[in-house]
Amino acid sequence: MDIFTFILEIIGTVAFASSGAMLAIEKKMDIFGVNILGATTAVGGGIMRDVILGVTPPTAFAQPVYILFAIITSTLLFAIVYTNPDIIHSKIKNKFYDKVMLWCDTVGLGIFTVVGIQTASRHVTDDNAFFFLFIGVLTGVGGGVIRDIMASETPYILVREVYASASIAGGIVCIVCRSTIGEAAGLVLGLIVTVVIRALAAHFHWNLLRIH
Amino acid sequence: MDIFTFILEIIGTVAFASSGAMLAIEKKMDIFGVNILGATTAVGGGIMRDVILGVTPPTAFAQPVYILFAIITSTLLFAIVYTNPDIIHSKIKNKFYDKVMLWCDTVGLGIFTVVGIQTASRHVTDDNAFFFLFIGVLTGVGGGVIRDIMASETPYILVREVYASASIAGGIVCIVCRSTIGEAAGLVLGLIVTVVIRALAAHFHWNLLRIH
Amino acid sequence: MDIFTFILEIIGTVAFASSGAMLAIEKKMDIFGVNILGATTAVGGGIMRDVILGVTPPTAFAQPVYILFAIITSTLLFAIVYTNPDIIHSKIKNKFYDKVMLWCDTVGLGIFTVVGIQTASRHVTDDNAFFFLFIGVLTGVGGGVIRDIMASETPYILVREVYASASIAGGIVCIVCRSTIGEAAGLVLGLIVTVVIRALAAHFHWNLLRIH
Repeated sequence: MDIFTFILEIIGTVAFASSGAMLAIEKKMDIFGVNILGATTAVGGGIMRDVILGVTPPTAFAQPVYILFAIITSTLLFAIVYTNPDIIHSKIKNKFYDKVMLWCDTVGLGIFTVVGIQTASRHVTDDNAFFFLFIGVLTGVGGGVIRDIMASETPYILVREVYASASIAGGIVCIVCRSTIGEAAGLVLGLIVTVVIRALAAHFHWNLLRIH
Repeated sequence: MDIFTFILEIIGTVAFASSGAMLAIEKKMDIFGVNILGATTAVGGGIMRDVILGVTPPTAFAQPVYILFAIITSTLLFAIVYTNPDIIHSKIKNKFYDKVMLWCDTVGLGIFTVVGIQTASRHVTDDNAFFFLFIGVLTGVGGGVIRDIMASETPYILVREVYASASIAGGIVCIVCRSTIGEAAGLVLGLIVTVVIRALAAHFHWNLLRIH
Repeated sequence: MDIFTFILEIIGTVAFASSGAMLAIEKKMDIFGVNILGATTAVGGGIMRDVILGVTPPTAFAQPVYILFAIITSTLLFAIVYTNPDIIHSKIKNKFYDKVMLWCDTVGLGIFTVVGIQTASRHVTDDNAFFFLFIGVLTGVGGGVIRDIMASETPYILVREVYASASIAGGIVCIVCRSTIGEAAGLVLGLIVTVVIRALAAHFHWNLLRIH
């Protein structure tokens, strides 16, 4: 179980590091800025989660493996775009770049939501569904919020189609499944629900009510 | 006493949630963004306070009642403006909107300043007036700072007339009254001083020294 | 040893307070905004460090001396520029202002990096070099990141020449020297390495790889 969670965390770390690194590349930051924004996006949500849970020092600081994966991912991405600058330049035409950004952010959102709930349940004994949900959503959206604030963008969570709502829906599914079917099912189903809702919303441009 | 503090906290939560939700509506965010910014403004200062005090998990996460009130407030405000969009459009004319925003922010500032001092005194045994004051001001201004940073605005605390100074003055009154007249008097008088100074400063455009 | 660390901390506090206060003056904030940004820059990194280490309440809140020095520094700077506004206006000509800002930020970066490592080693028993380095860099860059985000600037750490890399290099030197030559040598040599690398990078406009 812990190994399964760890594998999910590493995939989420790589996904969020990619979304932070790509945004930094787009903003013409140097290779170090790309690594910093990649790493901050990848571990930011988890650090906020651990501080809120009172887990100090946070896992991301105590175990260098997460930051290591974030740095490898960011540097690799930088190298790829540096040798193939057309990937960026052709972005307006084929939307390939936007798609990659969306998927990295979506996969990270889904994974960190369910991992956040899992971590909360390890450190808090009483079975408070609301609390688990808050922690899950905070972990899921935290890295992206820090990424956007550092890059002077309005946070995704406030302006994108169905973003935190996807994390909340997936979090509820995760919590319900954990206490009925089991932990692993909760992780997988919560993750799938978050990713599917977010991807559908982005593809069909689902918009929630807005005042013009 | 605890019930009185709780009532104050709920009023402050509603006031700060309103200020966050209104800013989100003004920025044309959707109903979910409005709820997120409302809730973040309402509980942000308290979460920072609890993390600083080592109270984990923070009250706002452990007891869903605060976030619940913030969400009800934000959704209600969204519904009111959605059905009466003129409230926003006529704002340039009658300044009604700016007044509401100011009062919500001011009441939240005053309440969270004194509640922050109250909470600090519950968790720290030694009677450190400076520390209580820092925590009070942090709790008072914290939610608004997070709101403004997330909405890509320069924080109120840095640019508005007599803002943190009102919180500091009210905090000092609160601390002095607590150790002389009593806890309840400290809460009420500290709150009144913060609100009156801030409201007078905004009304008369009191400006502090500035270099042009 | 503790007195030597304390003296370093006060110098770093004055340096970072200056960089925050000068940025606030440049942004035409009033005397209170100048003090708030000065104090936040000075103690922000240390508060993040203490929260991450689980040291609550953080030193900056428990001991008012740091915030006191930050406020004295900010108010003094405000008074100097207020009575000599030419210092700001002549900045485009003689670059004097940019130089002062650079040195304040550089000295703060260097001091807080090594002090962060020192503090981490006091609170965490096992000898985890990676962890010490993370905490050192976080403490060194934290105040500046908060300053830039509050002032609506893209954080230095993401866009300036060789910034976090100087902190990392100095941090590594500090950690290696601590376990070989001794604590004091680690502090001094780590500080020198950070400051020299950062100053050389700024002077010669060393740029890291960037994608255009």
